[in-house]
Amino acid sequence: MSLTYPAWHWIHEWSTPGTVHLHAVKSVYAFGRTKYQTYLVVEFDDLGKALVIDGKVQSAAIDEFVYHESLVQPAMLAHGSPRRVLILGGGEGATAREALRFPSVERVVMVDIDEEIVRACKELLPEWHRGAFDDPRLQVVIDDAEHYLRSSSERFDVIVADLVDPQAGGPAWRLYTKESYELIKSRLNPGGVFVTQATSPVLTPKVH
Amino acid sequence: MSLTYPAWHWIHEWSTPGTVHLHAVKSVYAFGRTKYQTYLVVEFDDLGKALVIDGKVQSAAIDEFVYHESLVQPAMLAHGSPRRVLILGGGEGATAREALRFPSVERVVMVDIDEEIVRACKELLPEWHRGAFDDPRLQVVIDDAEHYLRSSSERFDVIVADLVDPQAGGPAWRLYTKESYELIKSRLNPGGVFVTQATSPVLTPKVH
Amino acid sequence: MSLTYPAWHWIHEWSTPGTVHLHAVKSVYAFGRTKYQTYLVVEFDDLGKALVIDGKVQSAAIDEFVYHESLVQPAMLAHGSPRRVLILGGGEGATAREALRFPSVERVVMVDIDEEIVRACKELLPEWHRGAFDDPRLQVVIDDAEHYLRSSSERFDVIVADLVDPQAGGPAWRLYTKESYELIKSRLNPGGVFVTQATSPVLTPKVH
Amino acid sequence: MSLTYPAWHWIHEWSTPGTVHLHAVKSVYAFGRTKYQTYLVVEFDDLGKALVIDGKVQSAAIDEFVYHESLVQPAMLAHGSPRRVLILGGGEGATAREALRFPSVERVVMVDIDEEIVRACKELLPEWHRGAFDDPRLQVVIDDAEHYLRSSSERFDVIVADLVDPQAGGPAWRLYTKESYELIKSRLNPGGVFVTQATSPVLTPKVH
Repeated sequence: MSLTYPAWHWIHEWSTPGTVHLHAVKSVYAFGRTKYQTYLVVEFDDLGKALVIDGKVQSAAIDEFVYHESLVQPAMLAHGSPRRVLILGGGEGATAREALRFPSVERVVMVDIDEEIVRACKELLPEWHRGAFDDPRLQVVIDDAEHYLRSSSERFDVIVADLVDPQAGGPAWRLYTKESYELIKSRLNPGGVFVTQATSPVLTPKVH
Repeated sequence: MSLTYPAWHWIHEWSTPGTVHLHAVKSVYAFGRTKYQTYLVVEFDDLGKALVIDGKVQSAAIDEFVYHESLVQPAMLAHGSPRRVLILGGGEGATAREALRFPSVERVVMVDIDEEIVRACKELLPEWHRGAFDDPRLQVVIDDAEHYLRSSSERFDVIVADLVDPQAGGPAWRLYTKESYELIKSRLNPGGVFVTQATSPVLTPKVH
Repeated sequence: MSLTYPAWHWIHEWSTPGTVHLHAVKSVYAFGRTKYQTYLVVEFDDLGKALVIDGKVQSAAIDEFVYHESLVQPAMLAHGSPRRVLILGGGEGATAREALRFPSVERVVMVDIDEEIVRACKELLPEWHRGAFDDPRLQVVIDDAEHYLRSSSERFDVIVADLVDPQAGGPAWRLYTKESYELIKSRLNPGGVFVTQATSPVLTPKVH
Repeated sequence: MSLTYPAWHWIHEWSTPGTVHLHAVKSVYAFGRTKYQTYLVVEFDDLGKALVIDGKVQSAAIDEFVYHESLVQPAMLAHGSPRRVLILGGGEGATAREALRFPSVERVVMVDIDEEIVRACKELLPEWHRGAFDDPRLQVVIDDAEHYLRSSSERFDVIVADLVDPQAGGPAWRLYTKESYELIKSRLNPGGVFVTQATSPVLTPKVH
């Protein structure tokens, strides 16, 4: 008689060289190797649908709202009446969704480097963006965030950095430096607020 | 400074509950859940392109010829001048390729239950079938092998069973029984030869 | 030239059939299979020294104080002036340590089923118990917690259940039932407080 | 109801950065970090008792005879009537066992660098050495093999290199070089035979 075995398709999310979190994959919706990154849109056994970039779970259906709400709403509330919001990264469209929920918002600019991943998210993650990409207040710019900041003088009430972790060789490394933070600050209106995801000391202790 | 981590996308091939072979996935060419099976066509870091069905590596670019040649040619040679060959399973098309290489062969019938996987192999594994699907001597029948054998009285010089392992709940379980072997025998011409892949005692010791 | 590979000795902590946390083992201090459980005292690459029972990390040097303080002190403070404390389980001796820290405490009874593990903790985890086993106020009873409760009529101000998770076949299963909780309640003095570790909904969602 | 999970204690044997063989550990008999190496004597779920050094399964109860017989006997037979045998490495004592089986053998010198591992094997692997360590014809020398060869002028009929794989940073690296092979040759009697284990192209393709 044959045996029933555990799951056979896994993502290994390395937190340290001695700590790995494994998530079993039930289905693959998309796989791609873009100019910048390797991505997977999968259905996880435990987390539901999820976007994985370069081995890191970016967000998952089961709890993406925890991440995206917490990232965006406190900054919006801290400002009080933000009208213009800049998002650096944010490919899933859920950060834009959260910004657009705020009644005073007139314009959201989302700058993501990776057109292919933005397109995949738009098509495959409707639970994330919930139509945000069709909102006329949203402008999506495909560009390197730093390059965009240098080439535009537009100022914003809230700037949200929703970038991948600063992995060596990854596309977002430079955006976690003091130099970039000063550049970002120069694009804030008076009273403006900046917020960034900054990885987790639990998941990536060795980055710090 | 960030760290460079090992591969993060893996297939875990369970041989026993205490033995697993892990292969790192570089690219995903296709994923599907058919009526019968879950399959992946991937590029492995170590084995090159490969077809994985229900967690088992069916064959891989690096050594598929070892498997397919060894499966087919000894049976063909044992017969001497086979004209009609029946293949049970064999979705990749490489077993058909090997049968069609034999000069005396006039007709090859390949019976595979899973149309979606046959189509994926035809499209994605040209290194395997090398045009075999276009050979006018090949007839592909989408059917359960046992059902096909019962519903046709055609006899063959060589019958090759190139089926997935007899996993509980898998589609090929019944074809590894004495009853099926007798049915197969009844479809052989006088002097006919039957050959089957029969899993590996190393990879699946607990099947036996 | 040879390659440097990742760690090769790992504990796989299964949270669900599709979620596993891997911790690399640097050293093994002790391994044993007792009448009740299989245990390891190891040095983890990420968590430092740790006690693993039946595949679950019980506590680790890096953060055991978070667990043990949080388990014990709120219950002690809620009572106000506990004199008699009963600990069910608590093999590491750190729960006893926390109870003994409270100035009003006159007597602590710790009931653990597994003499071999208690002995290993006493010898190998001095950072946990910090001499608690030598405190004359502590009485260690080797017994099944439920059996102890039924066979003694002593009452306590605080009862702390510091048991392994309720795994099927594990020794603590029955102690997470309503029946046991009522038995525990009957051994509390008026104004007494009961507290239990109750696994984590993140680590063991399927227990619930 | 709780769930029964797969094994939780594993050795990950890395063959390439994209190929890993996992063996579940049932029991740990010994663990040590010597001056030279880290070793484990374990009971594997699939292979039975085994010696693991620096993440490589050296030999296992289930099939050590395949390795040790094949390593030693062809060389002995090729010589015909070996009287003096030198073993470089061979800590388990099974290579010595095989050499001592040959009737013409009068003297076996076994040179292993790691006294602690030799002692562990002597105590914990009686199924391997089967008393070879007590055979008066065997002399065990604790020394670096290369150093021993340089410091002794004794010549042998058969020399067997049963060393760990040439891993970077491992103790046996230099013994797989042309220089060492010439040194070994100079210690052979006329008609002498040298044999070495040389890792497996399947298990360690990237060494080559």
